Amino acid sequence: MNERVTFYKKQIEKGEWLFDYPLMKWLNARIIEVEEGFLKMEFKVESYMLNPIGILHGGIASTMLDELMGAAGFTLGRPVGYATINMNVDFLASAKAGDVIVGEGRVARPGKTVLHTEAKLFAADGKLLSKATSNLIATAIPIKM
Amino acid sequence: MNERVTFYKKQIEKGEWLFDYPLMKWLNARIIEVEEGFLKMEFKVESYMLNPIGILHGGIASTMLDELMGAAGFTLGRPVGYATINMNVDFLASAKAGDVIVGEGRVARPGKTVLHTEAKLFAADGKLLSKATSNLIATAIPIKM
Amino acid sequence: MNERVTFYKKQIEKGEWLFDYPLMKWLNARIIEVEEGFLKMEFKVESYMLNPIGILHGGIASTMLDELMGAAGFTLGRPVGYATINMNVDFLASAKAGDVIVGEGRVARPGKTVLHTEAKLFAADGKLLSKATSNLIATAIPIKM
Amino acid sequence: MNERVTFYKKQIEKGEWLFDYPLMKWLNARIIEVEEGFLKMEFKVESYMLNPIGILHGGIASTMLDELMGAAGFTLGRPVGYATINMNVDFLASAKAGDVIVGEGRVARPGKTVLHTEAKLFAADGKLLSKATSNLIATAIPIKM
Repeated sequence: MNERVTFYKKQIEKGEWLFDYPLMKWLNARIIEVEEGFLKMEFKVESYMLNPIGILHGGIASTMLDELMGAAGFTLGRPVGYATINMNVDFLASAKAGDVIVGEGRVARPGKTVLHTEAKLFAADGKLLSKATSNLIATAIPIKM
Repeated sequence: MNERVTFYKKQIEKGEWLFDYPLMKWLNARIIEVEEGFLKMEFKVESYMLNPIGILHGGIASTMLDELMGAAGFTLGRPVGYATINMNVDFLASAKAGDVIVGEGRVARPGKTVLHTEAKLFAADGKLLSKATSNLIATAIPIKM
Repeated sequence: MNERVTFYKKQIEKGEWLFDYPLMKWLNARIIEVEEGFLKMEFKVESYMLNPIGILHGGIASTMLDELMGAAGFTLGRPVGYATINMNVDFLASAKAGDVIVGEGRVARPGKTVLHTEAKLFAADGKLLSKATSNLIATAIPIKM
Repeated sequence: MNERVTFYKKQIEKGEWLFDYPLMKWLNARIIEVEEGFLKMEFKVESYMLNPIGILHGGIASTMLDELMGAAGFTLGRPVGYATINMNVDFLASAKAGDVIVGEGRVARPGKTVLHTEAKLFAADGKLLSKATSNLIATAIPIKM
């Protein structure tokens, strides 16, 4: 288990821990499970995340998916940062204000230069809401921790 | 020119008009040009839109792109709403807090059932930041106006 | 079990059966397993499928993936044909002449109007070679059988 | 103008030149225009490229698009080969046996490590048939010429 996974696991033990940067707070994001190359998060939909029809904006669902994939890459414990080359999202069902969304991100292929990642969002009852894939490329930017 | 395009054109004339639902306000969105099947919007990047590296979160760029494509579809003046089936995003460059982003959305094929749409985000100096495509499907939900 | 699945299962029992239209013969395609919404096929790579570097052309891998997804949709036994709206392919590894490729196609969401499908290609040793997703839309074209 | 563009331009002058590897011959491929980062090719649809409904198989259209994007990358004259990371294809209309298809491939962003490319297929009358994007990554494989 690498250092970052250890750190996350400790954070999860502490309880109601929010992933700590402003956009994650805005998304009501919480990490609930972590392994090397895998991450499970929870989000709570607020009215400010909706589109004019009153359902979760597709772009905000994409933000959750993008975050899950980037964070899954991060759990590999690599010494440099990765930049997302592309993201493909398929929208199968939506969510409304108050809904809790469970998301899973996974590194499907941990290539040295290119990571291929996947993520899914589920409703509280387990219904699949949306799916995504991304390819990320290693940068020269060192990551501390 | 359909009724919706006429409405948007009047809104643009009124000046500093923000597209009017909470998420668009959060994105500092402003429509600056509209035609049937085409839309140009401006966004201003705030620090709350950034990822931990300090650049615009890919998901928020995707939200801008998604909005541009949905709104471009809306300008067709069709009597029913459209739901997004999928979105593909390619990230070419990023933006930082304070940057103004200009986005263009376009209906590339206005099929009766499926719309194929495209969007691009540019930096103020014209540099291409990201690109997207989406397919949208007609729903049975009537749209007023 | 619907009529089409029954038909396919009988074909598989007959042994070295090739899926019967010219392009499938060119791909050395053979169905090896079928369920409602799921299909497993085998392909054998020939030198005429290679790119100038001497590995399986990405477009031909995409053809296998596209076929797997369309055929998985077909196993649902629906009375009308479906047309592919889009396909996303991720290339993780390649294959060379003589290699046997095992492919799986699956309907991830059997919506009435839109099917969301997935496919994967594997090397004989189980290594994941490529992945794809597609969205298919119901047409008015009746399917016999 | 780099060496490869010069070479292609000479080939075009020679007339009915087919791009010279077996799969391109199978596709009836012919280069009709080339610039650095841009390529125009023609294909002729044969009955062996069709799906069971009697229209061009989506995978074969994808092969044409993939080839156009790879070849557009090749026209940059870079000293190493590029590998395709992913391809997204949108199918807008199809073609039938005997149809001539005109395809265009373009490098939208010639990054040092990652190329972002686009391609389109058109019917003889200019109708847009399909569109694709790909991201390609530099390999260590040297390219002669």
